Amino acid sequence: MDQSLTSFIDIAADSDFTLHNLPYGIFSETPEGLRRVGVALGDWVIDLTVLEQHQLLDLPIATQYFSQSSLNAFIAAGATTWSGVRRALQYLFSSERSVLQQDKALLKQVLLPRSALYLHLPIEVAGYTDFYSSKEHATNVGSMFRDPKHALLANWSELPVGYNGRASSVVVSGTDIVRPSGQIKLVDQQRPIFSASKKLDFELETAFIVAKNTQLGQPVPIDQAWEHIFGMVLLNDWSARDIQQWEYVPLGPFNAKTFASAISPWVVTLEALEPFRTAGPVQDPEPLDYLKEDHRHNSFDINLSVKLLPAGGDQADVICQTNFKHMYWSMAQQLTHHTIAGCNLQVGDLMGSGTISGATVDAYGSLLELTWNNSKPLQLSNGQSRGFIEDGDSIIMQAYAEKDGIRVGFGEVRNQVLAAIDFNFPVK
Amino acid sequence: MDQSLTSFIDIAADSDFTLHNLPYGIFSETPEGLRRVGVALGDWVIDLTVLEQHQLLDLPIATQYFSQSSLNAFIAAGATTWSGVRRALQYLFSSERSVLQQDKALLKQVLLPRSALYLHLPIEVAGYTDFYSSKEHATNVGSMFRDPKHALLANWSELPVGYNGRASSVVVSGTDIVRPSGQIKLVDQQRPIFSASKKLDFELETAFIVAKNTQLGQPVPIDQAWEHIFGMVLLNDWSARDIQQWEYVPLGPFNAKTFASAISPWVVTLEALEPFRTAGPVQDPEPLDYLKEDHRHNSFDINLSVKLLPAGGDQADVICQTNFKHMYWSMAQQLTHHTIAGCNLQVGDLMGSGTISGATVDAYGSLLELTWNNSKPLQLSNGQSRGFIEDGDSIIMQAYAEKDGIRVGFGEVRNQVLAAIDFNFPVK
Repeated sequence: MDQSLTSFIDIAADSDFTLHNLPYGIFSETPEGLRRVGVALGDWVIDLTVLEQHQLLDLPIATQYFSQSSLNAFIAAGATTWSGVRRALQYLFSSERSVLQQDKALLKQVLLPRSALYLHLPIEVAGYTDFYSSKEHATNVGSMFRDPKHALLANWSELPVGYNGRASSVVVSGTDIVRPSGQIKLVDQQRPIFSASKKLDFELETAFIVAKNTQLGQPVPIDQAWEHIFGMVLLNDWSARDIQQWEYVPLGPFNAKTFASAISPWVVTLEALEPFRTAGPVQDPEPLDYLKEDHRHNSFDINLSVKLLPAGGDQADVICQTNFKHMYWSMAQQLTHHTIAGCNLQVGDLMGSGTISGATVDAYGSLLELTWNNSKPLQLSNGQSRGFIEDGDSIIMQAYAEKDGIRVGFGEVRNQVLAAIDFNFPVK
Repeated sequence: MDQSLTSFIDIAADSDFTLHNLPYGIFSETPEGLRRVGVALGDWVIDLTVLEQHQLLDLPIATQYFSQSSLNAFIAAGATTWSGVRRALQYLFSSERSVLQQDKALLKQVLLPRSALYLHLPIEVAGYTDFYSSKEHATNVGSMFRDPKHALLANWSELPVGYNGRASSVVVSGTDIVRPSGQIKLVDQQRPIFSASKKLDFELETAFIVAKNTQLGQPVPIDQAWEHIFGMVLLNDWSARDIQQWEYVPLGPFNAKTFASAISPWVVTLEALEPFRTAGPVQDPEPLDYLKEDHRHNSFDINLSVKLLPAGGDQADVICQTNFKHMYWSMAQQLTHHTIAGCNLQVGDLMGSGTISGATVDAYGSLLELTWNNSKPLQLSNGQSRGFIEDGDSIIMQAYAEKDGIRVGFGEVRNQVLAAIDFNFPVK
């Protein structure tokens, strides 16, 4: 890793988007304007379509990876292509001999001010799977909803528990979240009522993006699993706890989570994250053979935080700080387990980590855990308190990795909650 | 309904594919040949691209609905277009003044022998949702896996329980099913083992196909729900009961069902099924307002059967006969419930009914129920017995509606089971 990699572009010391990062996203210059692929660099976005047209990215002639409304085509091009573009960009923006250093007109065409652009969902989400791989989170939820003495179910320690999510409702940061309505069951009533959710919650997660199509009936061996991952995003897996509690037995969460799952707009590549590889937890019991992996390098040291910006406020409070490295099951184990019975994967599959909770109360990754199901409301700096999320509140999740003076950040996923729809049912 | 609708094409009296039916599918003339849209008629397939090019389908000039590898574009065109094409086809193949009656060269170009064609997945499956709407099935499964005294959970009677399935592994009839492997938990062992599934099962289902994109946060009212459905197919929701039992608590089935979900190649339109509308069960308790619907016309009288063709055999045994009309929750209720919290739908979403079981033992829609979890194996006519499905067995599901001499059939979904992969885990 070349720590001296600096750009002739002005990049703030604490920027998430350094020359070591180079995350990919989809942008347009007007809300309905042409969508295309860009890379975030400092306060700028590199318009890759211009560099592709000028054949400055070390790609074969006449590729069309970047005149696209999603990253899927570029992702499908494979690791050699990703690395080539990364090297080309690092050269273009650091070398004194770079054509961009010399041709200011071209540079102006290539670099667009990030704050003036519109960011869109970076991938066409083929399938969305959500895992449940934080031991602390699974223990907390099991304690609250099932049996504190046997909070962790027997299968949890043997396999990365996961379920199919709803791909159509994956949205990008910035999308407003309409408070969901549905059936909720109050303890003092025999039948459920129809109501806006009273327990709207966030879930702090990351997600990885699948890079290769695989065939039905052909599992991915664990020692090849990392090659199937393109990069990572932040994920807020919005959840309605009251809808969830009534509906989820026996087939799992459905309407409690299908109203929105929000991701950050910039996909941080696994290549950019390699310097931050670290040990995951020692797994006990030792996993079955198909899940066996050297734990010393199967996680990443990524700092995560959640802020709550209350309705009408201008001061966001940090309500959670934790780290990705606590996750019990690795991304490779998740991916391999997903395919072991024969399920095929697709370029653009999004796979959520599950809520990431640390061991201490200030590291819990959901309000359900932070307020212990509203029994210990959070005190905000504006004097208000929160058990769950109120209309007008915004949730902001951020993440970064930092080591030896090198910083690779995720930016943020931020959404504001709008009031529920006013239903007017026709009289029968 | 014009019962006298007969064709100048020879159509067998018991054909599923009458002029009253006209189901849509995707075919090619060679395995890798050009895929396009066809309609099944008797033993023939109508090549709709030829009729579209000749402007014989009452469509605007230069549409491209049928030179497609899926039905999605035609489905998105909407109900007026579907009805127009249906009327045009009925006229073209019944009228003595039809150009096809007069122009035998054109007729030969249009009508292809079905047995010589290759059939493909008819839709690009946007999302796959599976419901659980047979009271008899839910009661049977609850009795076996939970508590016979409280087999039906409290939420089951209040909402159409459903979960997100895996869209990528939806396959067409004819696809071989590799026996899945994974973690199974034997009663006499403390830890799970890795094994090929010993309890491979089918689930007899139908599924409907969503016709319209909807917006996130905008539920579909129940009185508009039927307009969002294009048609129906047969669905075998292949299941590995031992993998399922170990993995499914608390987030629902995952690897037990993501290895394959098979559908019939011909999509029978709701318009063709209208004559067979019938009453669904009276619902008790009366549903909440958002799910209220007149039950007298919210189901369909569709006969369903399952055959098992044992490995190496030439005689398939009928092992289940039931009817779709027993389903407790209607397709409209399923669709509306799916959107009530704000989830958006997409053209090409596939929504499974859940296993369809009738009240009697011979009407159960899975081997789990038919053999009561292998405690009462089925006797086959070849002298063998089956608790679950063995390698080489084929499962064949068929369906048809019949009334006043009019028959509308689904054809079949048929798959053969192949032996599990021989895993060779690398020694660590």
